[in-house]
Amino acid sequence: MGKKTVAVVGLGLIGGSIAMALAGFEDYEIVGAVRSQSTYDFAVSHGVCDRVTMDAAQAVREADVVWLCLPPEAILDFLRDHRDDFKAGGVVTDVCGIKTAIVEGAKCLPDTVDFIGCHPMAGKEVSGVANADRDLFRGAHCILTPNDGNDPAHVALLERMARHMGFRDVVRATPEQHDAIIAYTSQVMHIMAVAVCDDPDLFSCKGFEGGSFRDCTRVAALDVPLWTQLFSLNAPALCRVIQTLEDNLRAYREAIASGDRAALAAKLEYSSQRKRQMNFDSPV
Amino acid sequence: MGKKTVAVVGLGLIGGSIAMALAGFEDYEIVGAVRSQSTYDFAVSHGVCDRVTMDAAQAVREADVVWLCLPPEAILDFLRDHRDDFKAGGVVTDVCGIKTAIVEGAKCLPDTVDFIGCHPMAGKEVSGVANADRDLFRGAHCILTPNDGNDPAHVALLERMARHMGFRDVVRATPEQHDAIIAYTSQVMHIMAVAVCDDPDLFSCKGFEGGSFRDCTRVAALDVPLWTQLFSLNAPALCRVIQTLEDNLRAYREAIASGDRAALAAKLEYSSQRKRQMNFDSPV
Repeated sequence: MGKKTVAVVGLGLIGGSIAMALAGFEDYEIVGAVRSQSTYDFAVSHGVCDRVTMDAAQAVREADVVWLCLPPEAILDFLRDHRDDFKAGGVVTDVCGIKTAIVEGAKCLPDTVDFIGCHPMAGKEVSGVANADRDLFRGAHCILTPNDGNDPAHVALLERMARHMGFRDVVRATPEQHDAIIAYTSQVMHIMAVAVCDDPDLFSCKGFEGGSFRDCTRVAALDVPLWTQLFSLNAPALCRVIQTLEDNLRAYREAIASGDRAALAAKLEYSSQRKRQMNFDSPV
Repeated sequence: MGKKTVAVVGLGLIGGSIAMALAGFEDYEIVGAVRSQSTYDFAVSHGVCDRVTMDAAQAVREADVVWLCLPPEAILDFLRDHRDDFKAGGVVTDVCGIKTAIVEGAKCLPDTVDFIGCHPMAGKEVSGVANADRDLFRGAHCILTPNDGNDPAHVALLERMARHMGFRDVVRATPEQHDAIIAYTSQVMHIMAVAVCDDPDLFSCKGFEGGSFRDCTRVAALDVPLWTQLFSLNAPALCRVIQTLEDNLRAYREAIASGDRAALAAKLEYSSQRKRQMNFDSPV
């Protein structure tokens, strides 16, 4: 019996980084499946994985583990198009930043294929295999959304892979919990960053930016097709979080406008203590 | 004739960092004026400046240049209390994050004393001389708010000091321009950070934070008395910027809720291109 195989479908920033970070994992061969010739050439010449192929169907047929590293809609399309190609007894996972729609889409798979949703919480403001980085996941959270039907051995295998890749920890949630929380911890941060850049004074503020401005707007230079899909697929939860933020901003605006400094100080004390408590609980 | 003297009044995070960063500036002796014994002891034992005194009045009497490194209201109090102590022919500056109220307050000084407002755009989420850092200003903007009545030689002197301290550049603005712009580039970033921490889901999101969440909320653990003063002294400009942000967030919420993906993509394209343009113009 030969080596086992992991297929990484899509060698973009995340897929390329996963393929590189998986190097040396147990007795698995890492196979990258790509569509473009330029990605193929880059991956081969830079040794991103053990083997690169442009035949994704064949790659998933042979793979004991499949990582789907494509944009959200492309993952859903791939699951439908290749439902009968996945190896019986294998496990399939993905890297999408929303999980309910993906886990729902994966119900098209045969019962012999085990799907477990995954969200590696890492990224960059640049895309493509040329920006892939074997250390991208160091210190980051890896979220899995297993359900009662999944094989515990498969969940354990993905956890070992995550640890090998350098993730700080592996957290479990239901797809619905994941999407509600991620609307707050990630999606609305991106909405804030782009909303700040819509201010008419953006370009006249050059020379007046501090660290807080650079940090907050860092993620505004986002991948538009990807984030259009992520926001749209999580619209109800995200809209609730944006509304809450609007309300909390208005409350600060009213406290500042009132001229009541004691009330403003009390409000700032409340919020900043929450942040300190958060730091205390989650040293990063 | 002996050395010239710079007095740094207040050796907190900013004053301590300025005193350290000024070490070796031309032929100036750096004198720190402090109020607490513990700050005095720390500054002496760690060599924060050439000399430390608890007699601020005497320090400013001897100083050719005075840096007022106190909280906003304390700067206004110091200017009033020591209006007759400042050395004739000397220059006085400050480090306050708002400028109109400070420049207005400095009008109490005699005509023989030249006041030029300054805002070093750097900071940390911790305070006190123990956190002072001679490299705090590396790569940061230094803003000066001179007026027609200031001695150009004094403006040039402060610019040389800023370059010596490692600032990336020295930018000039009127106090009113400064305050309007800083409401956007700094103050509202802090308001966003605290408003995000008011979300009821803050503590349940542990394990689900990514880099965008850590970056955006970094400044939420703020110095409450300091920021209460900064926000209150710039209330009208800040409230306008918060209102604009609320409007821009609502526009995103409505675009997401509408289900019109093409419209959302166009909106994200607009905002993200503005951010890329900003990065292109201001590589940091």
